[in-house]
Amino acid sequence: MKKQDSLYMQVYDYYRGLIESGKMHNGEKIPSIRRSASEFGVSKTTIEQAYMCLCDDGYLVPKKQSGYYVSRRAEQRKSEISKRQKLTENKLIYDFASSGVDSESFDLSLWRRYVKSALRQTERLLGYGEPQGEKELREEIAMFAKQNRNCVCDASNIIIGAGVQSLLHILCPLICERKSIVFSDPNYIQGVSVFTDHGFEISKTFDGADIIYTSPSRKTRWGETISVAERFKLAEYAVAEDKLIIEDDYGSEFRYVNKPTPSLQGLSGGKNTVYLGTFSKLLLPSIRISYMILPSEINEKYRKVSSVYNQTVSKVDQIALCSFIRDGHLSSQIRKSRKLYLQKSKILCDLLAESFEDKVTIGKTDSPLFVKAEIKTDMSLNELVKSCEKNGLKIVPISENGNGIEIAFSVSAISVEKMEKGVNLLKSLITDSE
Amino acid sequence: MKKQDSLYMQVYDYYRGLIESGKMHNGEKIPSIRRSASEFGVSKTTIEQAYMCLCDDGYLVPKKQSGYYVSRRAEQRKSEISKRQKLTENKLIYDFASSGVDSESFDLSLWRRYVKSALRQTERLLGYGEPQGEKELREEIAMFAKQNRNCVCDASNIIIGAGVQSLLHILCPLICERKSIVFSDPNYIQGVSVFTDHGFEISKTFDGADIIYTSPSRKTRWGETISVAERFKLAEYAVAEDKLIIEDDYGSEFRYVNKPTPSLQGLSGGKNTVYLGTFSKLLLPSIRISYMILPSEINEKYRKVSSVYNQTVSKVDQIALCSFIRDGHLSSQIRKSRKLYLQKSKILCDLLAESFEDKVTIGKTDSPLFVKAEIKTDMSLNELVKSCEKNGLKIVPISENGNGIEIAFSVSAISVEKMEKGVNLLKSLITDSE
Repeated sequence: MKKQDSLYMQVYDYYRGLIESGKMHNGEKIPSIRRSASEFGVSKTTIEQAYMCLCDDGYLVPKKQSGYYVSRRAEQRKSEISKRQKLTENKLIYDFASSGVDSESFDLSLWRRYVKSALRQTERLLGYGEPQGEKELREEIAMFAKQNRNCVCDASNIIIGAGVQSLLHILCPLICERKSIVFSDPNYIQGVSVFTDHGFEISKTFDGADIIYTSPSRKTRWGETISVAERFKLAEYAVAEDKLIIEDDYGSEFRYVNKPTPSLQGLSGGKNTVYLGTFSKLLLPSIRISYMILPSEINEKYRKVSSVYNQTVSKVDQIALCSFIRDGHLSSQIRKSRKLYLQKSKILCDLLAESFEDKVTIGKTDSPLFVKAEIKTDMSLNELVKSCEKNGLKIVPISENGNGIEIAFSVSAISVEKMEKGVNLLKSLITDSE
Repeated sequence: MKKQDSLYMQVYDYYRGLIESGKMHNGEKIPSIRRSASEFGVSKTTIEQAYMCLCDDGYLVPKKQSGYYVSRRAEQRKSEISKRQKLTENKLIYDFASSGVDSESFDLSLWRRYVKSALRQTERLLGYGEPQGEKELREEIAMFAKQNRNCVCDASNIIIGAGVQSLLHILCPLICERKSIVFSDPNYIQGVSVFTDHGFEISKTFDGADIIYTSPSRKTRWGETISVAERFKLAEYAVAEDKLIIEDDYGSEFRYVNKPTPSLQGLSGGKNTVYLGTFSKLLLPSIRISYMILPSEINEKYRKVSSVYNQTVSKVDQIALCSFIRDGHLSSQIRKSRKLYLQKSKILCDLLAESFEDKVTIGKTDSPLFVKAEIKTDMSLNELVKSCEKNGLKIVPISENGNGIEIAFSVSAISVEKMEKGVNLLKSLITDSE
């Protein structure tokens, strides 16, 4: 079934490409179903399906007894797309700092099937659903978080929301007896702002804060993590000093080692810790599904007000994700992504070594999403970042010393082809300055 | 194309029904594609599509060279469904107080096509998208709000979010120089709680408040609205006294008259008014897409912090809704729903008149979603509500006087069949008490 799915999408993409690139024009007739079928060597059903989709998406219009023609809307769409592309192209060509995902890493056609399936559950889609999130999905997430992150949880203390911010908006009033919060990454403006908006004081020191917001799986922007020993220490400290830990487990799934470090929430037995997880990195950034695991005392408070907070995730996405996890696709997606990012990291390391030869020292990071490199140059870090930006190249700056600079590269969203060109460009920017 | 869409869904629903009702068992073979095609009198492609969907949704498993069999998972699903049904059935059978929608009012198969089409926009789905919401969708919403609600807006002062609460979380910090808020409906706990959470004081009087939260299109729970004259007065008062109005335009689309009363936002020229609109009632409650229109001074503040608030609506839904509106389906959906609810109101009025004869006076409401009735009885309003609840019947209580009680009925989610039984039950509860 999947093969067929992708066959028709190949035909779809082929004709869409011709239309969007202007190789086929408004009013032009495309080959008949019979002819296309024989040209592509596929069944007429496959071609018909592709043509139907092209009609649905406004690229073609069917004419009775005559065939399929390129629509007028296709021209319009073409100019929209080129406008959008121009906008992004002018700004940024080689993005080594992205938090997006690789188009290869996610099987969109598989996800499509699950969404379609969810859309067929007519009766379920007619009601508002549970404010906490669909129970079946919470059960699947509980199993997933237990198995993969050692979390202490079940369906009853998991809350589903459209992104971490939506969940923090529910959390803040539940912990308002605490006054101040410290962020291990003070630049995480999305988190800081929610707490500021809710009247919390942002503390600069650990000791001065009642709440500690930390991302142990992402200590730095370039994917370093906090060790198990440090995690234990933090968990103990929190219990001893009655601090609440908010563990934002962003990016935990892509560690080098096969099984990622257990979560703080798990290490502390679920006490004093609120756990935040998200599926945006695993699936698609445009699918906004996150979850929060509450310790029992906060969960009891939540129960009393749960009906006040409407669910923010569409039920279609919840139903789709539930079946997707149940059928084991989330786990295989993690394995697949990890492998892909490892390959890409390896390729980038080779490219850097080739280009910069003895001028580069490549460092290890804890995440396959990032490669760290120390490059010998007279340029300052600031100069390099500016020069890169001017030329459409984006990197993650780390540090500098007399000898050179240390930078990191995210391999998550950039293609292998662009990696090569990006590294060459970087090389020329550094060489030109000398 | 649409016809074909629904043909395969009819076959799908037929076999799903057989399996879920236990008429077909685990391991049983279903008729071959050829035989089904001749029995249903449709093409083999249609049957194949239905079977593929049944496989995708876990009802069937294909066996090579043999055919399609009822899967083991289907049995499991069956028990899940009956469990879920039992739960709801025990609690509530006749819901005359629902804010859900009628399953007939929305063409889910049409929406399905738009979601499928959105899922094919691979490149667009890979990025995070604009925090404010996709520009193309904001443009469509601007046009819609201008034409239908007389709003003063364009794509730049519209923010998209997953439900009204998500938008209020963004709004609160932007208007924090104001300290107190009054709600025209103090029972709107979802709104009250967001403002309380953000440290606003809830005022009991209009004069004491800096912000006025009002739903002019839904003055009461039973659909009464605020007149244009009153709206003008409120808008003038807000400007003169420097109050900010938050207009939650919930339910405006279903007025009796053909064109609903212009929004307060429009009447005040976009000044001093934040407008909130939602599509949950128009499409499906499980599709969580709302929008907020900001006056220019607040929008300027928003621009500075916009990147801080992540978008909460999935991009797939945004792309789908954008094309859905662009192709004119939202407007026809409104016309269709309005007609359906008018019909149902009429039927309910007849049923009430038939059952209660001279003991009932049926009143007009401003919304086709609600029917108001004054019933002569010795029961108190409280007694009736309790007796109803015990018997699985839910109504909206309004008032009581020496002669009888006034109640309202929502026709939005209940079927015509259940309406009839519900009215009969209500009659017997009132008669038995006498």
